[in-house]
Order: sequence, then C-alpha cells, then structure tokens
Amino acid sequence: MSKTLAVNAGSSSLKWQLFDMPEEHVIAKGIFERIGLQNSLSTVKFGGETHEREIDIADHGQAVMLLMDELIHFNLIHDFRDITGVGHRVVAGGEFFNASTIVTPEVLEKIKSISGLAPLHNPANVLGIEAFQALLPDALAVAVFDTAFHTTMPEEAYRYPIPTKYYKDYAVRKYGAHGTSHMYVAHEAAKVLGKPLSELKLITAHIGNGASITAIKGGKSIDTSMGFTPLAGVMMGTRSGDLDASIIPYLLKNCPDLESAQQLIDEFNNKSGILGVSELSSDMRDLWAAVDEGNSKAILAYKMFVDRLKKFIAQYFGVLNGADALVFTAGIGENDTDVRSDVVGGLSWFGMEIVPELNVRGADGIISTPESKVKVLVIPTNEELMIARDVEKLKVEH
Amino acid sequence: MSKTLAVNAGSSSLKWQLFDMPEEHVIAKGIFERIGLQNSLSTVKFGGETHEREIDIADHGQAVMLLMDELIHFNLIHDFRDITGVGHRVVAGGEFFNASTIVTPEVLEKIKSISGLAPLHNPANVLGIEAFQALLPDALAVAVFDTAFHTTMPEEAYRYPIPTKYYKDYAVRKYGAHGTSHMYVAHEAAKVLGKPLSELKLITAHIGNGASITAIKGGKSIDTSMGFTPLAGVMMGTRSGDLDASIIPYLLKNCPDLESAQQLIDEFNNKSGILGVSELSSDMRDLWAAVDEGNSKAILAYKMFVDRLKKFIAQYFGVLNGADALVFTAGIGENDTDVRSDVVGGLSWFGMEIVPELNVRGADGIISTPESKVKVLVIPTNEELMIARDVEKLKVEH
Repeated sequence: MSKTLAVNAGSSSLKWQLFDMPEEHVIAKGIFERIGLQNSLSTVKFGGETHEREIDIADHGQAVMLLMDELIHFNLIHDFRDITGVGHRVVAGGEFFNASTIVTPEVLEKIKSISGLAPLHNPANVLGIEAFQALLPDALAVAVFDTAFHTTMPEEAYRYPIPTKYYKDYAVRKYGAHGTSHMYVAHEAAKVLGKPLSELKLITAHIGNGASITAIKGGKSIDTSMGFTPLAGVMMGTRSGDLDASIIPYLLKNCPDLESAQQLIDEFNNKSGILGVSELSSDMRDLWAAVDEGNSKAILAYKMFVDRLKKFIAQYFGVLNGADALVFTAGIGENDTDVRSDVVGGLSWFGMEIVPELNVRGADGIISTPESKVKVLVIPTNEELMIARDVEKLKVEH
Repeated sequence: MSKTLAVNAGSSSLKWQLFDMPEEHVIAKGIFERIGLQNSLSTVKFGGETHEREIDIADHGQAVMLLMDELIHFNLIHDFRDITGVGHRVVAGGEFFNASTIVTPEVLEKIKSISGLAPLHNPANVLGIEAFQALLPDALAVAVFDTAFHTTMPEEAYRYPIPTKYYKDYAVRKYGAHGTSHMYVAHEAAKVLGKPLSELKLITAHIGNGASITAIKGGKSIDTSMGFTPLAGVMMGTRSGDLDASIIPYLLKNCPDLESAQQLIDEFNNKSGILGVSELSSDMRDLWAAVDEGNSKAILAYKMFVDRLKKFIAQYFGVLNGADALVFTAGIGENDTDVRSDVVGGLSWFGMEIVPELNVRGADGIISTPESKVKVLVIPTNEELMIARDVEKLKVEH
C-alpha cells in the first residue's frame, strides 16, 4: 500500500488530502483552521462522513501530529510509515523551479530565500514542509510549485517593459500562479478532446475567488494573466487585476488617509474586485442575489467582471493566434452558468457557441455545439490529485 | 477669408498650424521650442520653405506675439483679425468635456481645476489659450480635448475594480488619450471603406512614441488602452504600459535608491518601454539599427513591443466581438512596415492578411488582400486638421 498526502499549508491553516496511489483513490481529506489561535478547528471527511473537532492547536507541528492521530484513530492508516509521500503546494518557485522537486535541505533553503516573492505564502508553505518532515522523516517530501508550469513562458511574455535592472537585480518579472490547476485541466481537456496535448492550443480559465487565464500551446504555458504577484490580470473577488499604476502616487498625494504604496496594494488585493465595486461581497452568490434585486452596483461589478474575462481570453486568442478550445474551471468557472454564457456569448465572433442544455452547474466536458469552431469545455480542477501524481512520479524516479 | 490656427502648447513649446477654412488648406505651420529658456527657436514652414530663427522667448505670450509678427512678415496674413478661430489641444477634459468646447471664462476655470489629471500638460495648454486670447480677443477660442472622444466608453470599461470611493471622491477612472487622432482616422477609414461610420466596428492603432489602441463601434470609442494617465496600455518608446502594480511597493521596499512611488512612476513613464528594455534608445529607427546588428536586448524589446500591440488589438476584437477593420496611424503605425506585418501576421487567425506590395512606408489606404475578412488600413493621422474642423464647426454654430 502506498499512501500519499497532498498538503496546502497557509499561515493559520493546513489543508490535506490522502490518496491511495497510483489508484488515485481519495481516502480522506480535511482542513485545520485557526492554527496558532484559540478554538482551532479540525475537519476530517471520509466515507461520506464529516468529523469536526474544536481544539487549541499551537503550531503547524502540532497540527500534523493531530492529523496522524486522527488518521490512525479513524483507521485510515495503521502506522505513520503507511504514508510514503507528501506533496506540498508552494506558491512561489521563482525562476529556480520549473517542475515539482524533491525537498532536500538545499531546496528548502532556496524556497525560503525567495520568500520575498510571496511573503504571505512561502513561509507558511515552509512551516508545512518542516512539520511533516519532523514527523514523517522517511516519506518522500515533494514541493509542487504554483509557478512551475509558467516557467515555459517566452521572455517577451514574462519580462515587463521597465528598466532591465529591476529584472536582473530584483527578479521582477511575470511568474503567474494557479499553474497546477492550469496544467491539470489542460491534460484532462486533451483527453476529452481526444487529441494529444502536444498538438493543442488551449485557453484555460481558472475562475475562483482568485482567477487567472492561461494560453497553453502544446501543453506549455506561453502566457498567463497573473503577473509578478497574483494581483494582476482579470478582476477577482477582492483583487483589482490590471490597472494604471499611476493611480498609486496620485492617490498617495491626494488621499489624506493613505500612508504608503503597500497600504494601497493591500486594498487592491483585499478590498477591490467584485467586493470593491459592488460594496457588498466578494462572493459571486451574494453578487447574484443583489443583481436579481436590481442593485446597480452589483450589476456594474458583474459587467466589469465579464468584461475583464473576455478581454484576457480574447488576448490569448491573439497570443496563440487561434485556439482549439476554451476550458473553464474552479469555483465560478465550474458552477456559474451565466458567467460562462456571457463570456462565450460575448465572443461569438471567435467561433464559440454553447449548447444551453449542456451549460449546467457542475458540467464536466464539452458544452459547445458540434459546429463550434472553438470548443468550450468545463473541467473540474483537482490540484490535490495533480500534487499526488507528481509525488508518485518522483517516487518512481527516486 | 477665414483662417484658423490649430495650437498645441507644451510647457516650453508651442506647435501651430494655420489653415484656410473650410477649404482645409494648410497655409503654414511651425513650432516654438525652448520657450522660457535661452536660445529659443522658432521654425516656420510654408510653400516648401523652412525658416528658422534663434531668439530668446520669455513666455508663451511673447511666442504668440512673435508668431503674429512672422505671419505678417511672411505675408501669410495681413492683419491679426484675419485669424477668426484658434483651436487648442487640451490633454485632460476629465468627465466634464465630451466634445470640443468654446472657451469661456468658466470653461477655462474648469480646465484649470482638473489639472491634477494631467499636471504636466493642462497648465501648459492653459498658458497657450491665455496667450492667444490676450492678442486675438475676437478670434473664437476652442478647446479640443484628447479625452473627449473616449467619454462614450461604457462604465464597465472606464471604471477600475478598486474601492468605489476612489472614483467618486478622486475621479480615478480610465480617461484614455489620443482621442482626436483616433476619431480622425476612424472618420477617414469609413470614407476609404465606403461605409457609414455608424455601421462599422473599427480598431484604431495610434502607434507613435506614445501609443494607444481604441475599440470604436458606430463611430464611438467603447474602450481604449491608455488609462487614468497615458502610462497604461501597450508598451511605448519610454513608457511601460500595463504592469502589475504590486511591483511598486516591492521595489520601494527592496531598492535603496528609491524614495517614492512617484519616482518609480516617473521611471515607468520616461525610462521604460523600448528604451528600458533595449538600454539603447526609445526611437524605433535606432532600435531597428541595433536589431539588424543582432543586439539581443533590442530584439527582445521589439518582440515585447509587438507582443503588447497584438494583445490589445486581440482584446478589442473581443470587446467589439469582431471588427471590420484595423487601422494603423501615427509615426510607427504609418511608417514601420515590419511592425505592421508582424502584428497582422501574428493575428492571421483573426482573418487579416496584408499584401506585402501594399505594405510600404507611408502607405495610405487599404493594405490587406481582397479576401481578408478584416481589412487592414494605414491612415496618416492629422490632429491639427481635426482641431481646425472642430473650430470651423463651432464657428458656424456660434
């Protein structure tokens, strides 16, 4: 028996999923929340049941210890050593990691050294890696980078048109994000389309609370909407996406409340997007409720959201000089039928047409007409499975 | 006889063109440079001759006085009163001016009050207006706004996905620029295409040292690449165009040389774009010389330049859901045959194909094949003529 854990550690949370590999069978999954705070919460799901438990968890090390206890308690593993691999999501891999990588002391140091590229995420990812390494020293630890899939972008796509020193000396370039998701749905889309990925031009639209669009040629990311950080690109739940950077000094000069550029960027990350325009919520379901009541701010937020998605998708038709398929995934991409029909309907000139009967919540596969020159697909994303697959692949090679 | 001056006043320069209207005949044109500095220079061109004169010019008032002297000296006018209208380019019209406007004291106050939107330009434009009003009090003064053409953008295009207060209280939105040029070439393109502008969907690409792309539907701008300021959009000679705004606080934190967000935005405006990446020049001709020598930085700068143009043009195919024609104009758009062929060739999937024999320097009219689903045109821009036409129109209505 070979069991693999896929782990996504945040600063105060730890999400996990346990797989039987290579069968790709999900044994159980769960999350620790409020780590380091009082009344931490552990949730474990398996066999259709959900077990919740409130308990103070001091740090990630204690969370991992608790996880092992629970896995044994629920008879999901018999011994720690049943778990032979742990895959860790790492947000920023910089220019160093172009694929999932076995965690050595040197790799861990490198991940720490590029924390400046993801100051909220990489240190938390490191906490997760170290906690599991302490308790499961024999399991193969693998770092799976959000940015790795995008390291194939050509230089004209990843460089910014700013003085070269900022790239050479400060590593300022486009890194993108959601790479694991874009890569996963691209592979699945190729299966659905019945063609080798190497022969396909795809546009993948990962639209959740965070959102990014990627242009994929022959299985390789050649451009993506997120940039140096996940702030850039399309409009999101709370993030602005692209805007004129001149706004920053203008507002710093004119708004007495503002003290620093960082403060404004924090607002653009956390209080903008659908939340900032609707002044209601960052959640698409709340937005729809308000749109249905005729709330003009909610309607504007929705129109802007669709506008920015259309712009990036159209842009990547340009970058790819045409595409075989557009693939929707993630929370909104998988479930919001209106977003899909408004985006695709607004780009009908590009040769895309949806079958309304196929465009249902939770659709899985092709939703376009047979005549549609460009196919439209919905593929549920599964980053955890992709992480487990990468661990399995490296186990075999190891 | 009705003579009209089209004026473009900068902080230390004043460009002018004298028309016989409504014949649209250019009588003479010229420029004052280094106003307020020593060794100011006046250049006057007419009848195939160029007259240059070096003389200290203290301010815009003195420049206008000198201009009148020269026009009389060269027998181009007999009396100041021959000039019955003066049209002034004004960079920022904010949300107040959606068309060219006769300058009243109230209008002048309004232009001054929105100087914050174009701190380098509007005050200089005002100097020009006041100087001509003092000397030619009977001539109709008209303000022609760079932003007016873009006031037809829908709210989902002009609003940024940031907290609403920044729009309501600080007027932060997309205003665009080059409006007079985009409008002029759209009108001319309709004539060339033999269709009413009201029935056309056009993408106009004004590519000079500054550059912007506009989506025009039925003669109205519905989106444009420049934003709150002319920094945004495509890559330019010295401007970055769009980038991830998070770069600003990151560099402020990490670069010891940087003191303020404004300093960085000044670099993004003046030391970026083709200049910043090539580390050679902002001028396309210099860039080509280096590309021909195999200079890798110049080649990268050129690839990035074409990449960003393609992205915005493709994007506006999305915004318009298809277009009848793509129109190139301004310095590079009119004269750089490689930029045109690389942009159009890279978007062949969109149904555009150029006839290489028609794609010559200084082309004027259609350069695409008869089979090209989307026509490709080159239209030399003429902002001065557009200004003179607006003055003439308001004279008649006045």
